[in-house]
Amino acid sequence: MASYKLEELARLVGGEIIGDRDITIGGVAGIKEAREGEITFLANSKYDSYLATTRASAVIADRNGGSPKPIIKVSNPYLAFLKVMSLFSVDSSERRQRGIHATAIISTSAKIGADVSIGAYCYVGENAMLGSRTTVLPLVCICDEVKIGEDCFIYPHVTIREQCEIGNRVILHAGVVVGSDGFGYAKDGELNRKIPQIGIVRIEDDVEIGANAAIDRATTDATIIKRGVKIDNLVQIAHNVVVGEDSILAAQVGISGSTQLGRNVVLAGQAGLVGHIQIGDNAMVGAQGGVTKSVPANTKVSGYPAREHGLARKIYALIARLPDLFKEVGLLEKRVEELEKGTKVDSSAKDD
Amino acid sequence: MASYKLEELARLVGGEIIGDRDITIGGVAGIKEAREGEITFLANSKYDSYLATTRASAVIADRNGGSPKPIIKVSNPYLAFLKVMSLFSVDSSERRQRGIHATAIISTSAKIGADVSIGAYCYVGENAMLGSRTTVLPLVCICDEVKIGEDCFIYPHVTIREQCEIGNRVILHAGVVVGSDGFGYAKDGELNRKIPQIGIVRIEDDVEIGANAAIDRATTDATIIKRGVKIDNLVQIAHNVVVGEDSILAAQVGISGSTQLGRNVVLAGQAGLVGHIQIGDNAMVGAQGGVTKSVPANTKVSGYPAREHGLARKIYALIARLPDLFKEVGLLEKRVEELEKGTKVDSSAKDD
Amino acid sequence: MASYKLEELARLVGGEIIGDRDITIGGVAGIKEAREGEITFLANSKYDSYLATTRASAVIADRNGGSPKPIIKVSNPYLAFLKVMSLFSVDSSERRQRGIHATAIISTSAKIGADVSIGAYCYVGENAMLGSRTTVLPLVCICDEVKIGEDCFIYPHVTIREQCEIGNRVILHAGVVVGSDGFGYAKDGELNRKIPQIGIVRIEDDVEIGANAAIDRATTDATIIKRGVKIDNLVQIAHNVVVGEDSILAAQVGISGSTQLGRNVVLAGQAGLVGHIQIGDNAMVGAQGGVTKSVPANTKVSGYPAREHGLARKIYALIARLPDLFKEVGLLEKRVEELEKGTKVDSSAKDD
Repeated sequence: MASYKLEELARLVGGEIIGDRDITIGGVAGIKEAREGEITFLANSKYDSYLATTRASAVIADRNGGSPKPIIKVSNPYLAFLKVMSLFSVDSSERRQRGIHATAIISTSAKIGADVSIGAYCYVGENAMLGSRTTVLPLVCICDEVKIGEDCFIYPHVTIREQCEIGNRVILHAGVVVGSDGFGYAKDGELNRKIPQIGIVRIEDDVEIGANAAIDRATTDATIIKRGVKIDNLVQIAHNVVVGEDSILAAQVGISGSTQLGRNVVLAGQAGLVGHIQIGDNAMVGAQGGVTKSVPANTKVSGYPAREHGLARKIYALIARLPDLFKEVGLLEKRVEELEKGTKVDSSAKDD
Repeated sequence: MASYKLEELARLVGGEIIGDRDITIGGVAGIKEAREGEITFLANSKYDSYLATTRASAVIADRNGGSPKPIIKVSNPYLAFLKVMSLFSVDSSERRQRGIHATAIISTSAKIGADVSIGAYCYVGENAMLGSRTTVLPLVCICDEVKIGEDCFIYPHVTIREQCEIGNRVILHAGVVVGSDGFGYAKDGELNRKIPQIGIVRIEDDVEIGANAAIDRATTDATIIKRGVKIDNLVQIAHNVVVGEDSILAAQVGISGSTQLGRNVVLAGQAGLVGHIQIGDNAMVGAQGGVTKSVPANTKVSGYPAREHGLARKIYALIARLPDLFKEVGLLEKRVEELEKGTKVDSSAKDD
Repeated sequence: MASYKLEELARLVGGEIIGDRDITIGGVAGIKEAREGEITFLANSKYDSYLATTRASAVIADRNGGSPKPIIKVSNPYLAFLKVMSLFSVDSSERRQRGIHATAIISTSAKIGADVSIGAYCYVGENAMLGSRTTVLPLVCICDEVKIGEDCFIYPHVTIREQCEIGNRVILHAGVVVGSDGFGYAKDGELNRKIPQIGIVRIEDDVEIGANAAIDRATTDATIIKRGVKIDNLVQIAHNVVVGEDSILAAQVGISGSTQLGRNVVLAGQAGLVGHIQIGDNAMVGAQGGVTKSVPANTKVSGYPAREHGLARKIYALIARLPDLFKEVGLLEKRVEELEKGTKVDSSAKDD
């Protein structure tokens, strides 16, 4: 691997060096795991205590001191670390430009752009289109009439079902399923009759979808994942859902049919949303939140059923105090009883 | 695509036309997305407001009016729409009858029925049996001694482990795993020793299983998914579970070992069931419900821990009123204190 | 299948026979499903009632009687049953020693140990290493520079991403993804910029990972699954997580980034853990538990937000009594009002 002077790194990230500017950095690592010769970063205050003890030779942070090691001071340490990290990481997309493997089965009607890589034992269906420089790793199934844009990266064991559309610079991690049938049945007496799912999935530019996530095709029309959306592993997106630009969906989130998310929505891990609701721009749902109705823009909700986060926190804090409340009410009852007796005694006293 | 007179469609679904019966329909779509020339439907009252504004040329609904467009009036709009939709959808199972791909590896001892399709790079193990007209898409792994019935449809990247049995007209979506080992260990001092999972999975007729769902094989005997069950994406079914006829399991549901579901049970999204319990016929579990004990037939439960739904709703409503309750009790305490003082004052007054 | 005298089985498990020692056993099964000629076991007291009615010809249990059938009495019936079961189960790992399939694509730089099996349509990348006697079923993707130890068993459709390390005797079930990118982005104005994930996943000896589970690679350094850990289906492990030795993670559990688990931790189904926390040795989390902060060693927590289990149980019991509490407080209020009136009346009476 290459190595760099700390000064070069500071210049790269537009940061100020506090301490010895003459040292040499040969790698990157987390603050706990870093060894001598590596640079690390501090972005989460939970890790403040490691600042004094890290074995790293330098730290990217948003402060002037607190470390025996030189600091590169920047306002956004994570973003700066990201830039430094890219110096040391092998560019794996370049590394994988290997052309089309002899065993890849590509329908003669498929249109394959320039510099596309397709791995061993892939299947590309009829009339499918792959844009320039897109990389497909081994064992991927691209069904008929799928359209994939440029510079995409598709990991092993991905399935993209017929007619689905994928933009540019989209990353699909291993095991992702795009365009599986929506879950729709109509009761016909006792039986559940399958409703044909004849819509598609449309994924816009710069989307990333995590391992083993599933995005169902629409009943009619399209399930839409808009530009810049990031979806973590094992997420479920039902038919006819729309996810707005730049939204972030953490692992194991589930969104039911026809629900629509605005821009820049954040759903934390394992959150679940019922169908046919609207989540406004910039809304947030806490981890495991169970969202049963629409959420206005710029609102954070949490808990089950999900409520405005401040209220939810208050309620959960009060729940923790229920043992006290029950005791208090029990005591109050006795005191009231005592008072009632007293009143009686008083009145009987008067009778005397 | 074909086009139909509205009258033809009304006859097909046994509905009554309110308005112009002479128009021509060329496609189907959702009420919000439909364009001129298409027919849509209204089944969910949340969408009532779209009835007045839809661009569709006709609407299937259960009412007489409320729309400037002609209505086909039926009692079950979704079911009627389903019938109409099937006129316009390409029959994909027909389209895919392509025979057995040259690269499919099929053990010589496997028995393959008439008109079976097997896609590229599939593997079919020893003594496996596939019934007539079953379609297997590319990159599927069917292990030794698996039995699959007639008219099944198996999507890419499905794994069916050894000896598992699958009925007729079963649909397995991409990434489904049938027959993975049950999760069973016995403590041997500090260590967890694996319990061999020598049972199977038996899937009956007309079952559909969603993308990336996992159905574990039994420790001994069989994990059983009965006739007509519909399972959504990313569902987990543990070893020795039995799911009764026509039950519906929404996405990301998890069922622990040896739990048994009756007929026509509905589990909403992300619901979780502990092991070794019984869920009665027609029971329902709400989204994210955490079921810790058996549920009687014809009962709806929800919440964590799951309780009878009416009670659960009442309790969650009361939880929302906890801030008020704490305030009330605080005030009551003061009033009682005041009364106690008063009593004291009174008695001291008497002493005067 | 073979058959055995009950006495032979008792000797094998070190148990004492209560009843007829002369019968012959030809198979194993669960207590409800067992037929004549089979042996079963009773380990869960929920099944006590089956002891009197099972059709099995003998029962392994930790008691002297209660069954009309002979009992093999042992202290740990499940472990004893496990030993007996292994007599009757075909050793599938042996059965599958089939060598390297002609269609397996193995990079010339890969190092393959003795007696390794690799199934049809597998891909093994550059410089990958597979230890002796490891079995890889069809359609597996092992990326560049992956290291796999000895005696591992890898089911279909597994993806192991580049550079990840896997110990000895590791079992990866169908659809598992090891080494997918961690979910990390840095805000760059409005956009989420991907943080390169240049770390790996390290899986130690004797680990088992369930179907369609996903283990993300670290941002830098390694996500670590330590010796003896057992992970169920559809579990999500985020980047830089450490799971301590012999821990058990039930189905659909999710662990967020950088969280660390001690030894022998148990997470029940669908439990979710936020990032950057510590879970102490022998800690347990109840099903669906939502863990928002670190958990000390030897502590059980449950509920949302997760609290010490005894307290959580108490709180959930009190929640169930909220309807009563609200009523009681309402009544108390009336009684206090009454008392206040009384006091007034009294004082006004004095005024007379």
